[in-house]
Amino acid sequence: MQIDVCFTPDDYLASSASVVVVIDVLRATTSIATAFANGCRKLIPTATVEEAVVLKQDHFPDALLAGERKGLIIPGFQLGNSPFEYVRNIVDSKTIIMTTTNGTRALGLARNAANVFTAAFVNAAAVCERLSDMGRDVVFLCAGTEGNFSIEDVLCAGLLVSRFGLSATLSDKALAARAMYEGAHSDLLKTVMTSSHGRYLRDIGFADDVVFCLQHDIFSVVPQYCDGIITIT
Amino acid sequence: MQIDVCFTPDDYLASSASVVVVIDVLRATTSIATAFANGCRKLIPTATVEEAVVLKQDHFPDALLAGERKGLIIPGFQLGNSPFEYVRNIVDSKTIIMTTTNGTRALGLARNAANVFTAAFVNAAAVCERLSDMGRDVVFLCAGTEGNFSIEDVLCAGLLVSRFGLSATLSDKALAARAMYEGAHSDLLKTVMTSSHGRYLRDIGFADDVVFCLQHDIFSVVPQYCDGIITIT
Repeated sequence: MQIDVCFTPDDYLASSASVVVVIDVLRATTSIATAFANGCRKLIPTATVEEAVVLKQDHFPDALLAGERKGLIIPGFQLGNSPFEYVRNIVDSKTIIMTTTNGTRALGLARNAANVFTAAFVNAAAVCERLSDMGRDVVFLCAGTEGNFSIEDVLCAGLLVSRFGLSATLSDKALAARAMYEGAHSDLLKTVMTSSHGRYLRDIGFADDVVFCLQHDIFSVVPQYCDGIITIT
Repeated sequence: MQIDVCFTPDDYLASSASVVVVIDVLRATTSIATAFANGCRKLIPTATVEEAVVLKQDHFPDALLAGERKGLIIPGFQLGNSPFEYVRNIVDSKTIIMTTTNGTRALGLARNAANVFTAAFVNAAAVCERLSDMGRDVVFLCAGTEGNFSIEDVLCAGLLVSRFGLSATLSDKALAARAMYEGAHSDLLKTVMTSSHGRYLRDIGFADDVVFCLQHDIFSVVPQYCDGIITIT
């Protein structure tokens, strides 16, 4: 079993693994895990706001529209990108159509892989267990921020890598992500709050979201992206 | 003072810092530091073997030809890329013309910056002291291996970043490199021996070089690249 980590979506262009795990800790894949933990039935990511609106109008009139631009809820949408919004009494049994800046793009890149999952700190253990059961080569695809390296995604990849133990063969970037997590985990909040995306979210009033997103293993869901739709199996 | 780290030469294209520190731990910048610590007068990096040969013939008949391709000494050259070759009785007072796969390319990219230094674990403290004295924004440019991420270069950048303390503002990649070093430093040799470049050097008989290259702060030289020539000042 070989494990690789793509630090940014651009890194992924060179990858051809059949199992891809998309990570966008702040906040798309955290909110996705939260939504499924609270009963969401399916979630459809779209690249653009327009696509989301048309999809609801034409095919899913009861769907909730969700997403952000520059971290803020899109006008007219029911949900932003804060995991605190994805509570049971809003998302239970619902279809969500979601468009976010980075996570959705990364999912789009990975769509041709045989198996695509989403992971964050909040559902790391469950994702690791599924990957271990599959026993196949894995690429962790960090969504980054507008194409750039985002430390929180690579730290989450590092946590996931660290849990595979000695059975896996690690690429240099997988080794690096693991070392990075091991170096930062004792003060993860400080590190992420110092990062560019962490500072930005704090500045626009979402410091609590960062704290939420760094919780480990609180949800046991493993969202899987298949034929354009995310579900849990 | 802002600190950034470029994980690969491609990352550097977006950078415009005036102080650039090129890092190629295995083994160019380690051998460069070793050469100067042992009395080398000047070192001229070239992109190609042919360029090195012509430069010696036309301008520096007494120069030593040094360098590697695929880690091995170039036929007809006096020195390879192992720091063990750069001993005092060979390099003292000499001019060295050096062509290496990755380090030379990174130096070429950085050549237009106002100040370009080379660093490795062996001269990290001396380089940090110089950078602190200058008090300017710094980019650590990791040479990588054939354009790809090499963990040992980023770990060295992480050591350098970790020594700046709280006075510097760190980019996400600088934060990441520091965390990576902090996570790996208690077993640095094992981490680097597990990496792709470390394994390759071991396989071609240079495991001792890896051990040498991971020594911290054994040389006090600060090689500076200016107008195509590296010297110490």
